Amino acid sequence: MPVNIPETGQERIVIVGGGFGGLMMARKLAKSDYQVILIDKRNYHQFQPLFYQVAMAGLEPSSISFPFRKAFQDHKNMYFRVGKVNAVDTGRKQLETDIGIVNYDHLVLSYGAKTNFFGNKAIEERAFTIKSTTQALNLRNTLLTDYEKAVIERDFEKRQWFLDIVIVGGGPTGVEVAGALAEMKKYILPKDYKELDAKEVDIYLLQGTDQLLMGMDPKHGDTAERYLKQRGVIVKKNTRVVDYDGEYVITADDEKIKAGKLIWAAGVTCHRMEGLREDAFNKRNRIMVDEYSKVKGYDDIYALGDVACMETEDFPDGHPQVAQPAIQQGKQLARNFIRRAKGKDWVKFEYRDLGTMATVGRNKAVAEIGGMKFKGFFAWLVWLFVHLYALIGAKNKLIVFINWIWNYFTYDQSLRLIINPKDQADRNPPS
Amino acid sequence: MPVNIPETGQERIVIVGGGFGGLMMARKLAKSDYQVILIDKRNYHQFQPLFYQVAMAGLEPSSISFPFRKAFQDHKNMYFRVGKVNAVDTGRKQLETDIGIVNYDHLVLSYGAKTNFFGNKAIEERAFTIKSTTQALNLRNTLLTDYEKAVIERDFEKRQWFLDIVIVGGGPTGVEVAGALAEMKKYILPKDYKELDAKEVDIYLLQGTDQLLMGMDPKHGDTAERYLKQRGVIVKKNTRVVDYDGEYVITADDEKIKAGKLIWAAGVTCHRMEGLREDAFNKRNRIMVDEYSKVKGYDDIYALGDVACMETEDFPDGHPQVAQPAIQQGKQLARNFIRRAKGKDWVKFEYRDLGTMATVGRNKAVAEIGGMKFKGFFAWLVWLFVHLYALIGAKNKLIVFINWIWNYFTYDQSLRLIINPKDQADRNPPS
Repeated sequence: MPVNIPETGQERIVIVGGGFGGLMMARKLAKSDYQVILIDKRNYHQFQPLFYQVAMAGLEPSSISFPFRKAFQDHKNMYFRVGKVNAVDTGRKQLETDIGIVNYDHLVLSYGAKTNFFGNKAIEERAFTIKSTTQALNLRNTLLTDYEKAVIERDFEKRQWFLDIVIVGGGPTGVEVAGALAEMKKYILPKDYKELDAKEVDIYLLQGTDQLLMGMDPKHGDTAERYLKQRGVIVKKNTRVVDYDGEYVITADDEKIKAGKLIWAAGVTCHRMEGLREDAFNKRNRIMVDEYSKVKGYDDIYALGDVACMETEDFPDGHPQVAQPAIQQGKQLARNFIRRAKGKDWVKFEYRDLGTMATVGRNKAVAEIGGMKFKGFFAWLVWLFVHLYALIGAKNKLIVFINWIWNYFTYDQSLRLIINPKDQADRNPPS
Repeated sequence: MPVNIPETGQERIVIVGGGFGGLMMARKLAKSDYQVILIDKRNYHQFQPLFYQVAMAGLEPSSISFPFRKAFQDHKNMYFRVGKVNAVDTGRKQLETDIGIVNYDHLVLSYGAKTNFFGNKAIEERAFTIKSTTQALNLRNTLLTDYEKAVIERDFEKRQWFLDIVIVGGGPTGVEVAGALAEMKKYILPKDYKELDAKEVDIYLLQGTDQLLMGMDPKHGDTAERYLKQRGVIVKKNTRVVDYDGEYVITADDEKIKAGKLIWAAGVTCHRMEGLREDAFNKRNRIMVDEYSKVKGYDDIYALGDVACMETEDFPDGHPQVAQPAIQQGKQLARNFIRRAKGKDWVKFEYRDLGTMATVGRNKAVAEIGGMKFKGFFAWLVWLFVHLYALIGAKNKLIVFINWIWNYFTYDQSLRLIINPKDQADRNPPS
């Protein structure tokens, strides 16, 4: 039986996933003459670029999340359902979900990317990731619990296990996490854990290639590396991690690093939606789309954002899997549907590169915007305001702003609460 | 082996539980010449009077919590350990905890109260409680998940199960929850869940006696009842709940109310600390103390707050189990220890009744302060400011204040995020 959604007689656009692409498209279609249905496994939009601050106890999940129903309150043509999509039946134009069948006239796939462990099961099982607020909170709880355990641990080696952290992947997420951990080590630990010697905390950032922040100007990778090293992070380039037994992180060069926490930020892949033709996917599991975001081989299926791969002259392997392409594609697809309703021709997608940036913590960032490259305090201010501006919800902006101001002047990430102590109760070094 | 805590040569005061009593005492002993050790199973203090707002999606747990380590940052004589106390060995002056043995010179028990189900296992297993932020979040997640399920449920009876809520206990917590749910029904549901008929949501408040807010002037109970009824809450007095099979709440008069959620706010009891003499407890499991908060039969053990029962002329059954007695006892005991260090005599505890109050939602509250009794908008303002003032942490005060202002003017509790959807995935009416 189909899921209970009113039949309005309008053509129905079903959007799977309310990340940047899906949410922007849905909002742009508000008040259009389509019935728009958004399906997401969560009831809220998450602002991914700040997940790492949730993990580092700087922000609460709610400050960077926005309930979909609130976003749709004023729009009569929009419907939201919490559900997990299992497959698509392209012949019957139906989605199979855990809440039942959902019929569509047009289907938009914007379900995003997931962590890529490159087939390494040992790492998948034991590593921490930061691809959702739940994962970020889990890392935060573990981090804080481990500090508590280290305080009472008399054995040096075991204490190292609780304290040392290996971050794999020198992209923006890895760099930002390393920077935040280094700040925690410098400003929080000596005050909160006076019995601990903060110098015992080692933070490793491992990068497989010879440069951090690949995709930005190499100078920026060098700058970020210098910043991190100044803050005590041990940066190792050309270092690939091949195994993690829960006690030691093992690199391709057979180096062993003892650490109770491995944070994996080394790459993303996508889930393959069942029911789509095999040849709709490329080898990185992204869905191949044309310049109208239409999935190759279908007339009524579209893909946006991280999960979509639109090969263009500037981006022969598809756009980078970050917020901007998703936002722009979502808005453009909505505009095209509005044009369609008016009998107008569709307009091809053109990507406007608004720039990239990464922060290494207070006063320090690197940025490339509109051909300009800059670093340091100004880049950091720009980073703050761009992220504040992009956050959805005026109250979220206000709360995040207050938190940042507060943390800046107090040198304090103040949300150091272990909310689910039972989950971490049994953490102990293997031995 | 004893837990790793530095031996400073000072006399050691161990405080079990960092609620109002324990935390106030610890802070007051800062810079004294005792070594003060606080043990709590959480790493943060929780502000109990606002748990219900966490459950109702009005506040985040972090806004009403404060990390103990942050509270103790500037105090060299204070130590904090996350741990659960299993028993006390009064002969050896040791606590047995899940992190090891903790020796004490003086022991202060302030581990608080827990929900009393009066031996009813069926209710204990299925009811929701609001005695911790974790429980409050669990209720919030379930509430929101059930609305999502109700939206897609075609069967009227099943929908009733998802929507209807029974609150048992007409004390301040029960009254405040009922008021907040009624507001959610009136202001949020029609906007967020346009497919639902908010009139289908029934909110019951059941009270065993013939008056709400026992302990306050009966007029206030009547006022609260009138406020709640105006907002659509079904108030049933002289109604005792005897069973809940997960589908129907059953009263002593054999009435059956179909509801998927039973919120139990009908009373508290205490955990009996193992190792203490049987006759140290009264029949409600509170620890009998003299006017110096000293436990009867011991010279080096004290009890504070909800778990302590100090029989006085004004309070022959002990003080009410709310914040003020705990705060005042904690401060007084700390003062007496400081007097002790100076060779001075101890001073008996005298309770200053600062008043009681309860809110029924926006613009409506009842309060008794210093012999004055008032209600309505002014009482509500007083309620807001008293709670804001009592909150620990300047940033918490600011964030809560902003949330309240925001929610007041937008008629919105905006934190409607289901953070752990997996926990509620399987909720369905029994049938």
